[in-house]
Amino acid sequence: MNFVSVLEDIATKDLQELENCVEQAISEDKFIYETCEPLFNGGKRLRPVLFLLCSRSLGDCPIEKTLPLATALELIHTASLVHDDILDNAQKRRRVQTVNSMHGAQIAVLVGDYLFAKAFQLVAQGNYGSKIDAILSMLVKDLCIGEIMQDRAIFTVPTMTEYYDRINLKTAIFLSTCCKLGAIIAGMEQKDIDSLASYGTSLGLAFQIIDDVLDFFGDEKITGKKIGGDIKSGVINLPVIRALSVSDEADVLREIVTRREVTQSDIDDALEIIKNTDAVEYCKQRADSHIDSARQNLPFVMKSSVSLALEQIADFVVDRSW
Amino acid sequence: MNFVSVLEDIATKDLQELENCVEQAISEDKFIYETCEPLFNGGKRLRPVLFLLCSRSLGDCPIEKTLPLATALELIHTASLVHDDILDNAQKRRRVQTVNSMHGAQIAVLVGDYLFAKAFQLVAQGNYGSKIDAILSMLVKDLCIGEIMQDRAIFTVPTMTEYYDRINLKTAIFLSTCCKLGAIIAGMEQKDIDSLASYGTSLGLAFQIIDDVLDFFGDEKITGKKIGGDIKSGVINLPVIRALSVSDEADVLREIVTRREVTQSDIDDALEIIKNTDAVEYCKQRADSHIDSARQNLPFVMKSSVSLALEQIADFVVDRSW
Repeated sequence: MNFVSVLEDIATKDLQELENCVEQAISEDKFIYETCEPLFNGGKRLRPVLFLLCSRSLGDCPIEKTLPLATALELIHTASLVHDDILDNAQKRRRVQTVNSMHGAQIAVLVGDYLFAKAFQLVAQGNYGSKIDAILSMLVKDLCIGEIMQDRAIFTVPTMTEYYDRINLKTAIFLSTCCKLGAIIAGMEQKDIDSLASYGTSLGLAFQIIDDVLDFFGDEKITGKKIGGDIKSGVINLPVIRALSVSDEADVLREIVTRREVTQSDIDDALEIIKNTDAVEYCKQRADSHIDSARQNLPFVMKSSVSLALEQIADFVVDRSW
Repeated sequence: MNFVSVLEDIATKDLQELENCVEQAISEDKFIYETCEPLFNGGKRLRPVLFLLCSRSLGDCPIEKTLPLATALELIHTASLVHDDILDNAQKRRRVQTVNSMHGAQIAVLVGDYLFAKAFQLVAQGNYGSKIDAILSMLVKDLCIGEIMQDRAIFTVPTMTEYYDRINLKTAIFLSTCCKLGAIIAGMEQKDIDSLASYGTSLGLAFQIIDDVLDFFGDEKITGKKIGGDIKSGVINLPVIRALSVSDEADVLREIVTRREVTQSDIDDALEIIKNTDAVEYCKQRADSHIDSARQNLPFVMKSSVSLALEQIADFVVDRSW
């Protein structure tokens, strides 16, 4: 199962139109097109899918009304990935070469900026009004603050509050904003908008926690990411935080994760220490509990087909292997 | 004389309020404030000044109506400088350390992104409508394309058309957009909006040509930039293009400017070759002719005090030493 099939039950045409819009959005300049086209292959489209689903909460919503914003959300996500890959000096993403590895950091900065600007242009053209424009710019600001927070805290062990603040800004607020925007476009009441935003937040927290687990225990062939990448880049994530608080070998683990240069054998040692604790189980429980609360936040007023799709997405997030 | 005194004749309070707004715009997050505050010291504020002046073309324009957009223009300019400094690996800008030299490229990417997002937030809050939002996002896209064009063409000699395309996207469109936005806010007729936009374009072309000359013959203490910086970073500018077409030593010059590693003595040699031609005189004539056409584009319908200020800015651009 993937998100596409979830949405297909509700609106077969929407996702194809989204693909066309994304394609069109990057087609103005030849170099931009050639550089960006591979970036959009293989993406999950989670953010526009959440938005599109929520926009249909109360009934059909004309696709012309939702498409520019759905496209903008995917462009903002991709722009932030392009900039993230500079930060992480990543070579591959979604199994294709990153912009920085192909063209250098300079071009990657500009390509990301271009995608952000294009997103704001689509929203301006979509004429959604200043409330929605403001929500979108706030989202980009929050993403930046989350990444700055992460970058400034690398190689230091965060408290649980710091960890949650970071994954909230980095991931949860984005999913929450997609749901909120959909709910606003659907014309829902404020309390239902808030509920859907809470669904998105909980979903995002669970999503990021599972991402943390997959960083250690994912299948490289499926995730497309190297095992232990977070340790290498100094990002101390939930499995480590948990293992540090329960493992007999916490001192060894702490020494590895706070050191700026680690070898593959260090990463293997860290992995072994984490495996010997309940860290993975603990993370999955945390993720499950966020997914429970996501599910509880789905407003009753919603069309049942949309509710069902959002529940399926929630299940998928905790069960995913990528 | 500086731009502040030009504006002071017309609206003493405006610039002070702009400073307050810029200060407020960067005050939400402690790290952002500490990093960005020095960046805004010593800027010329050319872009918001052009916008504010043009907004008063036909009569007084409430400052509450113009301030968010004026601030957004300065934030966009600063964001693009922060990202440019990553591209150029610059250590200093406006005599203060660049964000990348203080905190690394990672943080500089994010700080620039934050400033772009904050600019779009201010514009959303200012409720200017989708037409103005679209103009602003188009501007950021054009800036990116201009920089990408420049980055991809380093160490190659551009044709005159390529050179003009690049400085148009990099500089002229920005000044033009500031004037155009001011004219729209002022409620001018389309033909006068177009005229003011043309004034801005011509001003921007002259501005960039003088910048090119200052790169070779400016006073480092005044410009705050190293002599020959463009040669070092592979950007081939107008004095070089002219010298290549008229100098007896064009071959030597071509060899230096297209080589990826140059010493100070190479730069001195290039400087000497350029000096022995009419390149500087030629650039100044070109700049003068753009300034003439800028002046001719000032619409008659404008308040004479605004016209006068825009003429003073035009004179200043060609006479400036920084």
